[in-house]
Amino acid sequence: MTVSHARVLYDLCGTDDRRFSPYCWRVKLALAHKGLAFETHAVPFTGIPGVLGGRFKTVPILDDGGTIVADSLAIADYLEDTYHGRPSLYGGPGGRAAARFVDRWAVTQLHAGVLKIVIRDIHDRLEPADQGYFRETRERRFSTTLEALEDKSAARVEAVRAALEPLRATLALQPFLGGPSPLMPDYIVFGTLQWARITSPVAILAEGDPVHAWFERCLDLYEGVGRRAAAA
Amino acid sequence: MTVSHARVLYDLCGTDDRRFSPYCWRVKLALAHKGLAFETHAVPFTGIPGVLGGRFKTVPILDDGGTIVADSLAIADYLEDTYHGRPSLYGGPGGRAAARFVDRWAVTQLHAGVLKIVIRDIHDRLEPADQGYFRETRERRFSTTLEALEDKSAARVEAVRAALEPLRATLALQPFLGGPSPLMPDYIVFGTLQWARITSPVAILAEGDPVHAWFERCLDLYEGVGRRAAAA
Repeated sequence: MTVSHARVLYDLCGTDDRRFSPYCWRVKLALAHKGLAFETHAVPFTGIPGVLGGRFKTVPILDDGGTIVADSLAIADYLEDTYHGRPSLYGGPGGRAAARFVDRWAVTQLHAGVLKIVIRDIHDRLEPADQGYFRETRERRFSTTLEALEDKSAARVEAVRAALEPLRATLALQPFLGGPSPLMPDYIVFGTLQWARITSPVAILAEGDPVHAWFERCLDLYEGVGRRAAAA
Repeated sequence: MTVSHARVLYDLCGTDDRRFSPYCWRVKLALAHKGLAFETHAVPFTGIPGVLGGRFKTVPILDDGGTIVADSLAIADYLEDTYHGRPSLYGGPGGRAAARFVDRWAVTQLHAGVLKIVIRDIHDRLEPADQGYFRETRERRFSTTLEALEDKSAARVEAVRAALEPLRATLALQPFLGGPSPLMPDYIVFGTLQWARITSPVAILAEGDPVHAWFERCLDLYEGVGRRAAAA
């Protein structure tokens, strides 16, 4: 083992070393699933252009002993294909294809609603340079102010809970999206809810909701790698 | 091969031998995917209690040479496990587990909206005895009349199109939910849209929508088994 075999995940961070990126959480669970040791390098939003010569505009970025891969699902594909002797992240080609559907479901049906709830909380947990970047880029993207975008109403929380219904109904049939044990689709949706847990005090999941129980199971996976990150 | 090896699918039917059940369509595509010949026995709603001694309340029911299986996903599991030397319906255990999520997504996010559009059309394409049964059971289930439930408005159609967004976004990445070729998740969602195509003249999918192009590809699968069923 030489220094060139270090495995480094570039991981978005806020104040107090808060690691909140939903996409980075997908990868941290995927690496743990594969039993692959890794270290993280904390990167604020405004630090991403300084990583690896600014090749990528977003994290996660994985440097696996010199092999560089960005994008959470591309990283999962890379891990699956490179470490095929270890527990499968997808459970076969059908699971790999379906993970794309779960990803697109989470991004199109959950992220915007969650973001409205937590957007000011994210802002308030960034270093000053990142706060300016975050406000400017998000206000341009949504053509309104963070303050106008924020919506912590009970109706908004209820809308996110309602959007989780396909997951909830699946959990009536099996303990994980992956079946008896978790696979990449679980880590995809876990990332979205972990993003909220780490940035915002709003309880998006109600106690007694099967999705809440599933999220708690996910927090406990791999020696509690998810739970060790402090909740907001 | 003896007579006991006949493979019979009990398949819901309306007038003019119209076979419209979304769940039966899932199974017809699954059987075709496996390359398994089968015949169908047409059953109206009110004929289900007369099938196999009334053991099941719904179709599809498959009689595979004396082995009886009901419920579309239970039938898919049975076919996958019994005919494992033939093309896989799931692409591995991860795909099998994810098919449950796709099923729950379709049923919770698409079916109610599609049903509102087509409910009167279904009724009008049933034999008189089935019309009475259908009206009574649905009006009790929804606590209103079929006429009040029906909604063919542009807004309703738009809502179904919007609900298809996770599928649409996935099709930007790959030609089928199953990846490069179709798997059971495709047949699940195909069944929902085929149900509408066969019962109602309303064009739920817009031309130019990637979901429309995907549905057309599905209609052409297995020598056009889906397309041979006449549209309403």
